[in-house]
Amino acid sequence: MVAKFKGFFITVEGCEGCGKSTQSRLLKKYLENKGFKVVLTREPGGSTVAEQVRNILLNPKLKIAPLCELMLYESARVQHIEDIVKPNLAKGCVVICDRFTDSTIAYQGYGRKIDIKTIEKLNNIATLGINPDLTIYLDIDPKIGIVRAKAKKCFNNGDRIERENIKFHNDVRRGFLALAKKYPKRIKTIKTEPTVKDTRILINAEIEKFLSKRKKNV
Amino acid sequence: MVAKFKGFFITVEGCEGCGKSTQSRLLKKYLENKGFKVVLTREPGGSTVAEQVRNILLNPKLKIAPLCELMLYESARVQHIEDIVKPNLAKGCVVICDRFTDSTIAYQGYGRKIDIKTIEKLNNIATLGINPDLTIYLDIDPKIGIVRAKAKKCFNNGDRIERENIKFHNDVRRGFLALAKKYPKRIKTIKTEPTVKDTRILINAEIEKFLSKRKKNV
Repeated sequence: MVAKFKGFFITVEGCEGCGKSTQSRLLKKYLENKGFKVVLTREPGGSTVAEQVRNILLNPKLKIAPLCELMLYESARVQHIEDIVKPNLAKGCVVICDRFTDSTIAYQGYGRKIDIKTIEKLNNIATLGINPDLTIYLDIDPKIGIVRAKAKKCFNNGDRIERENIKFHNDVRRGFLALAKKYPKRIKTIKTEPTVKDTRILINAEIEKFLSKRKKNV
Repeated sequence: MVAKFKGFFITVEGCEGCGKSTQSRLLKKYLENKGFKVVLTREPGGSTVAEQVRNILLNPKLKIAPLCELMLYESARVQHIEDIVKPNLAKGCVVICDRFTDSTIAYQGYGRKIDIKTIEKLNNIATLGINPDLTIYLDIDPKIGIVRAKAKKCFNNGDRIERENIKFHNDVRRGFLALAKKYPKRIKTIKTEPTVKDTRILINAEIEKFLSKRKKNV
């Protein structure tokens, strides 16, 4: 990515309630204070078509076959990369994306049990050669995460994914941990500490390491 | 398919205005009169999720990247096969489907210029091993077809696909003709004759050939 674009691409990953959205916002501010132009976006969504696909995906009333769900995530990904990620990287922005391909492997592969090779094939087609320069994985015990995610939504029963049982979410976490082990250079695992501030400090330390390495390479 | 299911699977393909929907309905009646249980369905659509995806796909207000469009068609396909095609074939019905994988190659490959191998890869993943036993391809000159399609919609400007220019539709036709040449055993080309009745007679003749061959094989 470094050679291809002026900007760089950070993804933030993790199970429900791990604090991805909050930490992504804080990370945006941290980088902006350092003088970077930052675009914060999310998957699935981030563009008109992709948001419409998101509405189908998260609608708890719909029964969606796992492979259909996978294809929907990939279709939203294509449009999101075309509309948001690629043009902003080309302009020299830092793009921070709340969820990306690792979530697809963790949720649809480890969670829904779709063959991992099939998912990798689809991820490769959909990403159009755009891969994260750095991934922050926020690790949390799903038992705690689910409670947090539900509390945040004020007694709402949660979307189609949040409604899955604890075994599903444990499998998803296993997926993230396996990916972090497989791609240690790209994926940095942050154990979510009790407070938002503690986690933020750990993330910023990883960002500093990444930025200084990047400086040497440019 | 013959060995796997009691029923059999017929797809009807062709450019806009070729008469697919009308002929599919007539074919349903023809087979019902012969004692078959017949389910008539269409792509994209045929089930709740797939119809919602269809709404996105055909919305002329949306700008959809070609690869996103392809993935949306494939996602609708998965759900449609799971909900409609597979269970009905298993019950011993004849399933007639208005558009299937050949349309994806013709429209997204020859029309939108997406790499054919990528489409074949996605078609293979999405079809779950379900392939048509027989495909009726209704060949029409797009110049005539487009006029017919527009007339039918009473001065409506047409959906996102119908609004494409004549070159696009000529490319799509080239795609169908190439497929018919590549799979002569499965795909039967019917030149659409001036009247609905003439075309129907040609289709029924192909159906009779297919049924007598099938009888010999069972």
